[in-house]
Amino acid sequence: MKFTEYTKGYITKINDVIKSIYDKKLNNISNQFLREYYSELKDYFLSGGKRIRPLLCIATYNAFTTNADEKIIFPSVGIEFLHNASLIHDDIIDKDNFRRGKPAFHFRFRNYHQKYDLKKMNALDFGNSIGIIGGDSAFFLGLEVYLFNEFERDINLRAIQYYEQAFIEVANGVLIETDMVNQKNLTISDYINMISLKTGALIEKSLLIGANYAKVDEKYLSHLSTYGINLGIIFQIIDDILGTFGDEKITGKPTDGDIREGKWTCLLIEAYNKLDSNEKARLNELIENPNITDNNVQEVKELFLKADVINYSKKLADSYYKKAQIALDKLKLVIHKSELEFYENLLNFVVERKF
Amino acid sequence: MKFTEYTKGYITKINDVIKSIYDKKLNNISNQFLREYYSELKDYFLSGGKRIRPLLCIATYNAFTTNADEKIIFPSVGIEFLHNASLIHDDIIDKDNFRRGKPAFHFRFRNYHQKYDLKKMNALDFGNSIGIIGGDSAFFLGLEVYLFNEFERDINLRAIQYYEQAFIEVANGVLIETDMVNQKNLTISDYINMISLKTGALIEKSLLIGANYAKVDEKYLSHLSTYGINLGIIFQIIDDILGTFGDEKITGKPTDGDIREGKWTCLLIEAYNKLDSNEKARLNELIENPNITDNNVQEVKELFLKADVINYSKKLADSYYKKAQIALDKLKLVIHKSELEFYENLLNFVVERKF
Repeated sequence: MKFTEYTKGYITKINDVIKSIYDKKLNNISNQFLREYYSELKDYFLSGGKRIRPLLCIATYNAFTTNADEKIIFPSVGIEFLHNASLIHDDIIDKDNFRRGKPAFHFRFRNYHQKYDLKKMNALDFGNSIGIIGGDSAFFLGLEVYLFNEFERDINLRAIQYYEQAFIEVANGVLIETDMVNQKNLTISDYINMISLKTGALIEKSLLIGANYAKVDEKYLSHLSTYGINLGIIFQIIDDILGTFGDEKITGKPTDGDIREGKWTCLLIEAYNKLDSNEKARLNELIENPNITDNNVQEVKELFLKADVINYSKKLADSYYKKAQIALDKLKLVIHKSELEFYENLLNFVVERKF
Repeated sequence: MKFTEYTKGYITKINDVIKSIYDKKLNNISNQFLREYYSELKDYFLSGGKRIRPLLCIATYNAFTTNADEKIIFPSVGIEFLHNASLIHDDIIDKDNFRRGKPAFHFRFRNYHQKYDLKKMNALDFGNSIGIIGGDSAFFLGLEVYLFNEFERDINLRAIQYYEQAFIEVANGVLIETDMVNQKNLTISDYINMISLKTGALIEKSLLIGANYAKVDEKYLSHLSTYGINLGIIFQIIDDILGTFGDEKITGKPTDGDIREGKWTCLLIEAYNKLDSNEKARLNELIENPNITDNNVQEVKELFLKADVINYSKKLADSYYKKAQIALDKLKLVIHKSELEFYENLLNFVVERKF
């Protein structure tokens, strides 16, 4: 089944589960501020998002089960909670006030503070404080789907292991990335190692949790892992290209953030590799300047283009595309055709996406 | 067994488990920054703390088991991870740079930024960012003790339910408290409701997790809950007295924080109840002033003393002491004498503590 058809079939159901989790919470709460808090979390969660992770969990479950049933949909959203919890905290860290064209979670409570003209704390601190707790809540609410569902306790405990592992790996990736900004002479393998944790781990675990509920034979897990991690790597490479050379109108994201933050993307690493020593020195000067101007950002982009970084990065993505494809070839004979098509389709979508 | 003897017997073992969890992580990590990160977490966790929550978990397990064994020690630290994770995030929110006389977790990375003279981000944002992720990591590392231990999967899944519930209740308490600062005319029952979530829930769950591993009959759980929640309530009432009238040299905490933040403690509520309308108006003016001076804080304290708030609060604590005592009476015949003594001793310690 094509990715878009799969999405169409499940997205409402996935969103309904997310909604039901928050509605259950809201039904048991009378405190006015808590109601506001969980309502904002609910609204934040339901404001878009491609739901790729729950879809991968559902598809993997369906790929290996003969009597496809719908009980996988409920636990499939766990990873989406983890993902959104990370986004809530990331937005505080990166000072991004918008996400998917709507206010970031912490920014909603900065606005709340201003709206009600609160006396104590300032609006910025208030927003960040509620934002920190908001991310924490989302991490824990994600756990609930493994605690109360139709599967056996044994399998649920293993799902929680994947959930826990996913967080630890994502956090390690984010920490390595934060530190890389202060490092020199990084290689493309440093970058791939970092993004396979930061982005690959959560996608991989979405597949493994689906496989866990379908009781998939262990010998197939490594292929699912390989597909998932490489899909994540490709996703991040394309994200990094779009983060600097994307169409802001389509991506909804400014194209100067990564350069301003001095992020070690594949673009920057390749530029350092290709440019001559004068250009390299200039690039270094621009990237390390904490007060980088719009013109400087433009100059960095021109150096990037001179080093042909877009083509390089696309070729890099292609090499991981091949790895993912090989993993799918090994699964071809044991999974249903419709889910094989979904996996292949998603792989193509991720490579070709413009947003 | 007396509280101090119990502590002496177990505290090294509890700390060894915490140490081993971090050492296992550190053994598998080569990245220099990640090593620094987990080492700081380990050091933060091992820098003091009374370990009341793991001790309560262990005591409850021992209270109901005939062949006391040591396998409870490992999962007993889960709640301590949750507690410390909350402290890490609280210290960012409250801008407290010290905890237990040592640098708060986020403050360690503010110092790290300065030490290495990092270029990107400023030291404040860097510290807060690593602090947010640090709290998140601690929440997840706490989960690990329920995933890998000597107990059956079934019981472990129920322990995770308690762990999840504990966080949600603590967070609700903290959120209600944050909102209370902007409310008027709060009653003592608003306060009790808030602290039973903020402080009572985690202590209650420490007992329930211990009971869960000892497979305690359901009919005793409500008495354990009652004891735990009321112990937490007393703990917080005394904490609030010490937070304004304690000896800074003994508590290690400044005695102006709650007044400056305009926190609705039992002290403030009782002052509003007792004072005449002129004094009340003055108190209100002082508390709502965002630029409150040292002299103002002193004036608030004098109004507090005029309203005899310390005696009131001690009597309040006494009423919860009685509730906890009644719960213990109901457990008297089914638990071991040494753990009954531990429970009673801890109750007295919490009421009488000066730090």
